[in-house]
Amino acid sequence: MKDVRIVVCGLGNVGKAFVELLAERAPDVEARYALRLVLAAAVDIGGAAVCDAPGGLPARELLAHLHAGGRVEGFGKFGRPGLSGPEALDAAAVLVEATPTNLTDGEPGRTHIVAALRRGREVVSANKGPIVLFYKELLELARQNRCGLHISAATAAALPTLDVARVCLAGSRILSVEGILNGTTNYILSRMRAGGAAYETALKEAQQLGIAETDPRKDVGGFDTAAKLVIIANVLFGPSFRLEDVPTQGITGVTPEDIARAGKDGEVIKLVGSAERVGGEVRLRVAPQRLKATHPLASVNGSEKAISYMTDTMDRITVSGGKSSPVGAAAALLKDLINAYV
Amino acid sequence: MKDVRIVVCGLGNVGKAFVELLAERAPDVEARYALRLVLAAAVDIGGAAVCDAPGGLPARELLAHLHAGGRVEGFGKFGRPGLSGPEALDAAAVLVEATPTNLTDGEPGRTHIVAALRRGREVVSANKGPIVLFYKELLELARQNRCGLHISAATAAALPTLDVARVCLAGSRILSVEGILNGTTNYILSRMRAGGAAYETALKEAQQLGIAETDPRKDVGGFDTAAKLVIIANVLFGPSFRLEDVPTQGITGVTPEDIARAGKDGEVIKLVGSAERVGGEVRLRVAPQRLKATHPLASVNGSEKAISYMTDTMDRITVSGGKSSPVGAAAALLKDLINAYV
Repeated sequence: MKDVRIVVCGLGNVGKAFVELLAERAPDVEARYALRLVLAAAVDIGGAAVCDAPGGLPARELLAHLHAGGRVEGFGKFGRPGLSGPEALDAAAVLVEATPTNLTDGEPGRTHIVAALRRGREVVSANKGPIVLFYKELLELARQNRCGLHISAATAAALPTLDVARVCLAGSRILSVEGILNGTTNYILSRMRAGGAAYETALKEAQQLGIAETDPRKDVGGFDTAAKLVIIANVLFGPSFRLEDVPTQGITGVTPEDIARAGKDGEVIKLVGSAERVGGEVRLRVAPQRLKATHPLASVNGSEKAISYMTDTMDRITVSGGKSSPVGAAAALLKDLINAYV
Repeated sequence: MKDVRIVVCGLGNVGKAFVELLAERAPDVEARYALRLVLAAAVDIGGAAVCDAPGGLPARELLAHLHAGGRVEGFGKFGRPGLSGPEALDAAAVLVEATPTNLTDGEPGRTHIVAALRRGREVVSANKGPIVLFYKELLELARQNRCGLHISAATAAALPTLDVARVCLAGSRILSVEGILNGTTNYILSRMRAGGAAYETALKEAQQLGIAETDPRKDVGGFDTAAKLVIIANVLFGPSFRLEDVPTQGITGVTPEDIARAGKDGEVIKLVGSAERVGGEVRLRVAPQRLKATHPLASVNGSEKAISYMTDTMDRITVSGGKSSPVGAAAALLKDLINAYV
């Protein structure tokens, strides 16, 4: 049995879902993987809760405290007002980074991750910001300090993208990647196709269902897809891709007529993030694309996501599904955490 | 750089494709994984070829010799007439088992695998026989000798099934498994649906294309699907499942009328191998099933395969594709080999 002490930074929906999963799954993870996962500290904007005892923080009580509107730094005798993420790292072997994605400067996630890697901590991140903006530097830091940077939850969450490429395609050469990496836009396009709805109508419906955010620009503009694509490309093809180099076209210009016209040719329109080898280089692109009905991404509907790899020796391998929710993201964090130690 | 010396048992289509892949990929595997894969010995029914030198056997020359109709034990100065698989193991750290599947007593693969595990060798098997019949014993032997038993190539080859469950779903609970695990039957059903062809016509076409074997009973009777399902269930749910416990119905009774009737309800008929938790136990079954058009296996057509996992925290994850060919199986062997050392 190995004890793994964890500090969670960020207690939004994903951070809380992770703490809940930890509490619920700890006995199962002990039995199946011989890992005792211990919540040593939880950090949010105003401070932290820390427990040095072997069992760590009482996760269920912490959640009840948070759900009742309490702040983490006010969690009884464990509260540490003003204690920051890097300061809380002393208590743990792993950083679970779940602060909000910031694609401008990656903060505060970048500071947390850099501090963790410098101290040789394993990092498991659901936060895309620092990974999109600083992957090369972070990877180098992880290598220097011989620790791992695990980012499944930052790249389509419960849909396995990088795992599949790394493990299931080991030894083959990836020739191209195509992904439906954003559930919101796929939901809107699916609704426009199935119901003949206009873009605005489908968007409103998605907002009412909680699938689209009030400000949907990052999804419908293709930027979330581009961010995930940049992470995937940096891992698979070398860490030199930047968000600003990806020609990105969203779905706001797609009309019901476009979809009907494609349908007449037996095709569907999907927002695809793609990476393709052209000569010696890899070209990334995000755009609505017409796919033949036989294309494995064509039948991925609703808010579901999928990724399809074309390889030389294994032909095409496609993965679809995976819950698009805080629970799905938390499950991806737990998966990375387990795989880091097993 | 780590040297990995390999003995390949069985030089049929898969064994030869693996030797070819090894020759072609060695430089790439060295560069990407810091592994030097060395073909130390190759064994077939009449003997072996062995080379103790650091570089191992000249793989391309061996292949040319075999393609010209030569036998492995007659391969110049390397030939060892009468040398058996277990005897050849001295030369290597890994057994790649690629002799034909035998679902009666698992031989000769069983003897090779047992001998390898007893000596602490890693085993990578494309041979389903010993895995279906003796998984529990082999797993125990692997544990006792602290070595790995890697069986991707025995469970749908280049379609990743067990990898996805083990790595991508780590920490989640698998509630059910559904798979289209046999390319031949899926091809026949797809042709019956698309062209309205009778079963016999579609089978003949598949035989002409080399997709179905001259004696198709193991495929169309559902037994190949059942064998793969038993392997998957033994790995995922505990090693207690036997082939004879799986109610198995093939596709020979499926008529064009059945398919048309399903089509009218918006459904398709697929040969599905399934494992489902019912109460405290897991029930396996192989049968033609009507699937709704929205089911992720419904759009898997032609000779393609797929597996779909329903989980508690990640929802449904489906993988499809993967070349159904000796090259695909060889790629799965190479993948397992790399993952055993990386």
